[in-house]
Amino acid sequence: MKPILVLHGPNLNLLGSREPEVYGHQSLADIDESLIERGRHLDLDVTTYQSNHEGALVEMIQGAVKKYKGLIINPAAYTHASIAIRDALMILDIPVIEVHLSNIYKREPFRHQSMISDVVTGKIVGLGADGYLLALEALARRIHHKNERKR
Amino acid sequence: MKPILVLHGPNLNLLGSREPEVYGHQSLADIDESLIERGRHLDLDVTTYQSNHEGALVEMIQGAVKKYKGLIINPAAYTHASIAIRDALMILDIPVIEVHLSNIYKREPFRHQSMISDVVTGKIVGLGADGYLLALEALARRIHHKNERKR
Amino acid sequence: MKPILVLHGPNLNLLGSREPEVYGHQSLADIDESLIERGRHLDLDVTTYQSNHEGALVEMIQGAVKKYKGLIINPAAYTHASIAIRDALMILDIPVIEVHLSNIYKREPFRHQSMISDVVTGKIVGLGADGYLLALEALARRIHHKNERKR
Amino acid sequence: MKPILVLHGPNLNLLGSREPEVYGHQSLADIDESLIERGRHLDLDVTTYQSNHEGALVEMIQGAVKKYKGLIINPAAYTHASIAIRDALMILDIPVIEVHLSNIYKREPFRHQSMISDVVTGKIVGLGADGYLLALEALARRIHHKNERKR
Amino acid sequence: MKPILVLHGPNLNLLGSREPEVYGHQSLADIDESLIERGRHLDLDVTTYQSNHEGALVEMIQGAVKKYKGLIINPAAYTHASIAIRDALMILDIPVIEVHLSNIYKREPFRHQSMISDVVTGKIVGLGADGYLLALEALARRIHHKNERKR
Amino acid sequence: MKPILVLHGPNLNLLGSREPEVYGHQSLADIDESLIERGRHLDLDVTTYQSNHEGALVEMIQGAVKKYKGLIINPAAYTHASIAIRDALMILDIPVIEVHLSNIYKREPFRHQSMISDVVTGKIVGLGADGYLLALEALARRIHHKNERKR
Amino acid sequence: MKPILVLHGPNLNLLGSREPEVYGHQSLADIDESLIERGRHLDLDVTTYQSNHEGALVEMIQGAVKKYKGLIINPAAYTHASIAIRDALMILDIPVIEVHLSNIYKREPFRHQSMISDVVTGKIVGLGADGYLLALEALARRIHHKNERKR
Amino acid sequence: MKPILVLHGPNLNLLGSREPEVYGHQSLADIDESLIERGRHLDLDVTTYQSNHEGALVEMIQGAVKKYKGLIINPAAYTHASIAIRDALMILDIPVIEVHLSNIYKREPFRHQSMISDVVTGKIVGLGADGYLLALEALARRIHHKNERKR
Amino acid sequence: MKPILVLHGPNLNLLGSREPEVYGHQSLADIDESLIERGRHLDLDVTTYQSNHEGALVEMIQGAVKKYKGLIINPAAYTHASIAIRDALMILDIPVIEVHLSNIYKREPFRHQSMISDVVTGKIVGLGADGYLLALEALARRIHHKNERKR
Amino acid sequence: MKPILVLHGPNLNLLGSREPEVYGHQSLADIDESLIERGRHLDLDVTTYQSNHEGALVEMIQGAVKKYKGLIINPAAYTHASIAIRDALMILDIPVIEVHLSNIYKREPFRHQSMISDVVTGKIVGLGADGYLLALEALARRIHHKNERKR
Amino acid sequence: MKPILVLHGPNLNLLGSREPEVYGHQSLADIDESLIERGRHLDLDVTTYQSNHEGALVEMIQGAVKKYKGLIINPAAYTHASIAIRDALMILDIPVIEVHLSNIYKREPFRHQSMISDVVTGKIVGLGADGYLLALEALARRIHHKNERKR
Amino acid sequence: MKPILVLHGPNLNLLGSREPEVYGHQSLADIDESLIERGRHLDLDVTTYQSNHEGALVEMIQGAVKKYKGLIINPAAYTHASIAIRDALMILDIPVIEVHLSNIYKREPFRHQSMISDVVTGKIVGLGADGYLLALEALARRIHHKNERKR
Repeated sequence: MKPILVLHGPNLNLLGSREPEVYGHQSLADIDESLIERGRHLDLDVTTYQSNHEGALVEMIQGAVKKYKGLIINPAAYTHASIAIRDALMILDIPVIEVHLSNIYKREPFRHQSMISDVVTGKIVGLGADGYLLALEALARRIHHKNERKR
Repeated sequence: MKPILVLHGPNLNLLGSREPEVYGHQSLADIDESLIERGRHLDLDVTTYQSNHEGALVEMIQGAVKKYKGLIINPAAYTHASIAIRDALMILDIPVIEVHLSNIYKREPFRHQSMISDVVTGKIVGLGADGYLLALEALARRIHHKNERKR
Repeated sequence: MKPILVLHGPNLNLLGSREPEVYGHQSLADIDESLIERGRHLDLDVTTYQSNHEGALVEMIQGAVKKYKGLIINPAAYTHASIAIRDALMILDIPVIEVHLSNIYKREPFRHQSMISDVVTGKIVGLGADGYLLALEALARRIHHKNERKR
Repeated sequence: MKPILVLHGPNLNLLGSREPEVYGHQSLADIDESLIERGRHLDLDVTTYQSNHEGALVEMIQGAVKKYKGLIINPAAYTHASIAIRDALMILDIPVIEVHLSNIYKREPFRHQSMISDVVTGKIVGLGADGYLLALEALARRIHHKNERKR
Repeated sequence: MKPILVLHGPNLNLLGSREPEVYGHQSLADIDESLIERGRHLDLDVTTYQSNHEGALVEMIQGAVKKYKGLIINPAAYTHASIAIRDALMILDIPVIEVHLSNIYKREPFRHQSMISDVVTGKIVGLGADGYLLALEALARRIHHKNERKR
Repeated sequence: MKPILVLHGPNLNLLGSREPEVYGHQSLADIDESLIERGRHLDLDVTTYQSNHEGALVEMIQGAVKKYKGLIINPAAYTHASIAIRDALMILDIPVIEVHLSNIYKREPFRHQSMISDVVTGKIVGLGADGYLLALEALARRIHHKNERKR
Repeated sequence: MKPILVLHGPNLNLLGSREPEVYGHQSLADIDESLIERGRHLDLDVTTYQSNHEGALVEMIQGAVKKYKGLIINPAAYTHASIAIRDALMILDIPVIEVHLSNIYKREPFRHQSMISDVVTGKIVGLGADGYLLALEALARRIHHKNERKR
Repeated sequence: MKPILVLHGPNLNLLGSREPEVYGHQSLADIDESLIERGRHLDLDVTTYQSNHEGALVEMIQGAVKKYKGLIINPAAYTHASIAIRDALMILDIPVIEVHLSNIYKREPFRHQSMISDVVTGKIVGLGADGYLLALEALARRIHHKNERKR
Repeated sequence: MKPILVLHGPNLNLLGSREPEVYGHQSLADIDESLIERGRHLDLDVTTYQSNHEGALVEMIQGAVKKYKGLIINPAAYTHASIAIRDALMILDIPVIEVHLSNIYKREPFRHQSMISDVVTGKIVGLGADGYLLALEALARRIHHKNERKR
Repeated sequence: MKPILVLHGPNLNLLGSREPEVYGHQSLADIDESLIERGRHLDLDVTTYQSNHEGALVEMIQGAVKKYKGLIINPAAYTHASIAIRDALMILDIPVIEVHLSNIYKREPFRHQSMISDVVTGKIVGLGADGYLLALEALARRIHHKNERKR
Repeated sequence: MKPILVLHGPNLNLLGSREPEVYGHQSLADIDESLIERGRHLDLDVTTYQSNHEGALVEMIQGAVKKYKGLIINPAAYTHASIAIRDALMILDIPVIEVHLSNIYKREPFRHQSMISDVVTGKIVGLGADGYLLALEALARRIHHKNERKR
Repeated sequence: MKPILVLHGPNLNLLGSREPEVYGHQSLADIDESLIERGRHLDLDVTTYQSNHEGALVEMIQGAVKKYKGLIINPAAYTHASIAIRDALMILDIPVIEVHLSNIYKREPFRHQSMISDVVTGKIVGLGADGYLLALEALARRIHHKNERKR
């Protein structure tokens, strides 16, 4: 089984209680569990991590360099301003998929810009928790089919 | 089987020959075929259509109102400027997923803006032809699970 | 009776079904009928045409050059971006009135700009189907009173 | 007869003498007279008022709250910058129509923006003194046909 | 008792009737009364004045130069554009507090900018009629404690 | 002797007491007196007027149409935003000179723009009270030498 | 006694030593003490917390959800850019008051914008340490008077 | 003889009648004829095509891929906004020259920007019908001299 | 007699022949002569210099440091972009007056900005050759009346 | 033979050695020679001049007023910022063609703007040294065919 | 020996492995070692610190107040957005030099802006690890030569 | 000894007398002398040149192509706008270091942008005359250590 890292940004630890009409009723634990289970069917070993600290997310990404075969990241609030996370992602040489639960384009204008979209492989927006599962499938195809190149 | 419409915008008819390093080597016919086949497994009856004419795309969307249960659209060049396509999409009451083959955020700045992102359900970018298949799966879940609301 | 052309832009063929809280419940056929009837009282012979194709609207305007004494146009989505329609209107030497059913200034910012307002005679906004009838009256006055100049 | 208020903004008192090639040769008194007369045919009792003072226009609008069934306003120079007039209009619960004699879109860019367009019912531009008469007709229809709502 | 001036800008005379969900149900007379009463407890002699005229507000501020020990001002609509009020405030050598009843940052973007914030002592926003009372307390502390400097 | 009007905008009534390091120590009465006296030497009959009210300044300009042979105007704070004053000036058919006491280009950016500079004959900035006297001389030359055209 | 949380952002731990001409000579401990004491008179139990870490502030806000009845926050440098703090505040269902010691509108332009002003109840700026005390009073009124709603 | 395609955009079919002071008195047929004749001298077989439809122009460009050795295009109104035409041009591997009859830099600002200039070989502006003939000559040199590369 | 330097920028050597409807029919020699003559009456010794070279103008300004008591400069085209001229002017410790013959605010937008206005004493615009003479008078007053400070 | 002036701006003296992949391998002498020779066939007497000095180019243009029948100018780096060259060109009453060797629209954004395009007759871009020859032909037609007007 | 602090921002811990074509092959430990050694020759006692956490960097700067005689800082990704680091630097009263390894002006536009450049003494960019050593030399001169003041 | 060129832009010839609080008290001759002396220790043969003429600086850079091994340039006022200097620098194939005496980020916003930073090797700002010496050292390392590549 290939190791995959899933990173959740600030305030996602409150999922389920925070603005459920925007983010749905599933908790982050529920999502992580479904990712791990789906990972097993796709022959992927999923590790998940959440932090409210920009520096901690940067360090998790740095640590992925030699350890993981793919990365799913929802940087939440840090999506729109963190150059440090962008810089860390630029070091990676594995497929990376950016995921957003809500349709950020229906929300405040500052959420329409992303500091990382041009340094990731792809991006899935607005499909709720399904977005993570679809990202996992996309990684599975890329990782198990060697002939795909990352960027 | 639930009927699904897949719309391809201008110049996508040349897929495979046009800038293969950006868009891959699959032809549009290949993609359509794989969508129809995958649709069958997901209990979805997929119809596909390509046009280089903004007006023709507008009319296909208008025609979807009562006929389809879901829409996948890659408006290509019209993504960034067509208010007519946006207005047609606003009439629909079914889930709509916007798909882009290439990672538009690695390309010219005018491709970073979309006239439709805030009137669709979700958006999948940069995952090549896989993006269409993932969109189809996302629609399958929404359509077969009644408790999901569209927007 | 003087000939008058009324042009309707994209998605107006769906009037009555499309967002009735914004555009009202009248169908386009209803509006056209009331325009023809009111035209008769004003000694004007009204022809109406709708298209979702920018090129088709351009050609209808081109065809108006020698044939009509006045033009009412609601370019809908093409209002905000079509230089081709603007260029066609610049050829005309008859009074032209721009009409919008809804109050476009209460809607998305991109609807506040018009590519044609500075090349038409006048503009009527936000008065629903009445807007077309008032435009017809304004044309009647200008056409029957020779001493008015167009622009 | 239903009471209607017509408000004219700064410098409109000089109508007829001021830039006649832009504003026509009719004086403001001529226009007011034609409005009152047309009002009588439409079962509307028209009151007119002109001021060069922003504060005076604000107070006339405030005074309209309980007293008038409709308002026609040409705020002239104050159109483009007066938040005070906008705020006063927001208090009203009657149909309001913004009128401009000249086609403001053919003039300086700062005249293309209006501080009030998104808080009025509708807007008539570039049709000269006819604009006021058409606005009066539009009000007549709305006021005499109860099933219309204001905004 | 130290004399204090409280100035209210345009449309505030309609407080209580104007958009109560934004501005609350208290009338301006109620607010003035509570300010005068609270002033008495704080050893301040409060005078209040409202005007819809920019020029009148300018002159009230000019008149404050030698007469008052502190100023509370809610310029309402004139907040965002009046350089004349700004210029008048720059002449004063007493503490000035800008007050807004509603949270202007939740409203239209043009209300987010203030022409006077950088020439007043402080600013209280979004706390309803309480904002005026808190401003009065802040003035009391500054005026009765000599060691505070104004700006 | 030819009649000349000199208009002073808001807060100029406080000249001498207001920010003397910016505006100098002369009072407005001093300046007016020196203008009248200098006018006499130049065969010009100078009338001066100050107001803090935009509407009052508009009406003074309107009144100048047939009455004066030249106008000197320092609209102070209204320079940067008053379209009403601009519109009134556009009616005049006499030479108009805009004067500013201080060098507005050394002050806040919003003071660098003028709503009237492109509709006046000329502009004198930063020369203190001398600016008015120089403007008077410039008018004298234009008025007494018929072969000069206004704009 | 109702529990209240007071949060101080980065560099506020140096208060008293850092630019005293901007921020005053009181230390943060002095301010906290005066808040706790004033809280006691207002029947409020005040807890204070300072951090230089964005993530730590986010977590303190998250922790406030069920625990506190009101929040006072001075996010200092994070005011102008932290979407993570904004997102955390959006979860809260209690009154929140934003406080700034100095008049941020007299400082660098980037300090004029706030990422949180439109998601808090109110804002107090430029009144020094008094700003915190006034915020506490405002909270007391809201919390003890049940009929007030938060936003 | 090498095959060359010449494409004319919207409203160019009216050449000669449309604003002759801007576009000259030659009809499009005249220009096409002179291009074919000049082509014969340059050993080029010229085909010409005009359309008012963006989609039709896109398809003509797509069809040029294997068929023509050079392309001259005047996209008229579509120059400034058509990403679809740009995308079609990006597929071509032959020299492409953009031609404009009038000097677009003397006209409205929106005509100063081109969506295609950075994907064509060269651009000729403001030289009237001569511009097409010069473009043909430039193509002749590039096509007959093998050592030139396209972009 | 006090020495004064008058500097004329690029293309002013063609005065009289260049766009006379904008710049008048006087040649530069005529203007220089009238300045020298008027200088004599004002007890000023006027030296004039014209150059089309930015560097030459910079060096003339540098040379003025100890040599002249006042400077009149019309940098013409260099007004709007020359930081080198600005830097040279900042070295001077004498009164400097910027003069423009035409009303630059009636011309292209790039002429409305000046790189030097905030480092000169004052500015005279749109008064033709009179502007230079008025500038000379202003200098005379400042230089002969010691109690004026330069900036 | 009619006299024609060809002006080359800064750094063009290094043509052939400077970035040959952008500008080609021909030296400026080669280009000048081919222009003179082609001129002979077109009955034009070509003079060429290169300078790195803005002022020198300005003076060459000034000198062209009475002396030349046409001008070809490649202002190179001065294209994008020189108002002095623009002003000099505005004096000319002969056809002027702006030429750029490389396709400036494929280069840095600041090269996309030209200070002179709206004051020249036409513009040829991206066709290498051929651009000069085509410009010469265009001038030949205009100069030998009297019925063409310049701008 | 005078104590000097050297601070490295996020992702600099990966130096040597991260994009070596941009940042070179030296590790951070190599650089720190060479700084300490060079410090010894310059009579400076160098302490180095790296963190990926904005808050940690803020606190290191705060701690420098009394402890160090000079600071070298490369805030990496935090350069472009951290107001917290800026605020901390503003407290210091010692020379501070900003260093960037790569030439940030050859990279993405958001790297061209710095939040700290106007609050540091100087800045060294694009000289690789040499930049740090040059900064150390600059500090040595300032610290050992007492007559230099910091800002 | 390797030859090095040092270029100084406009107004630097006045160093020492011009704004000493910004630029220090050293004259340009002092700086040049210290550069030549330091050069000798670094085995570099330093030539210095100052000009106030953009064209002269361009030609000095052009002349450096084959003659010098390194370039230090302080373009002063031309830094922010000279594309001609940028173009000349792009021809060079030797290390180039941009130096500014003062910290340009503490000055007017137009001084924050540089037209050359992305075409030089590195940049040293705000360190006074030391900046030149440090640049010389940086060049010495690059030139004497062959394994360094220029850009």
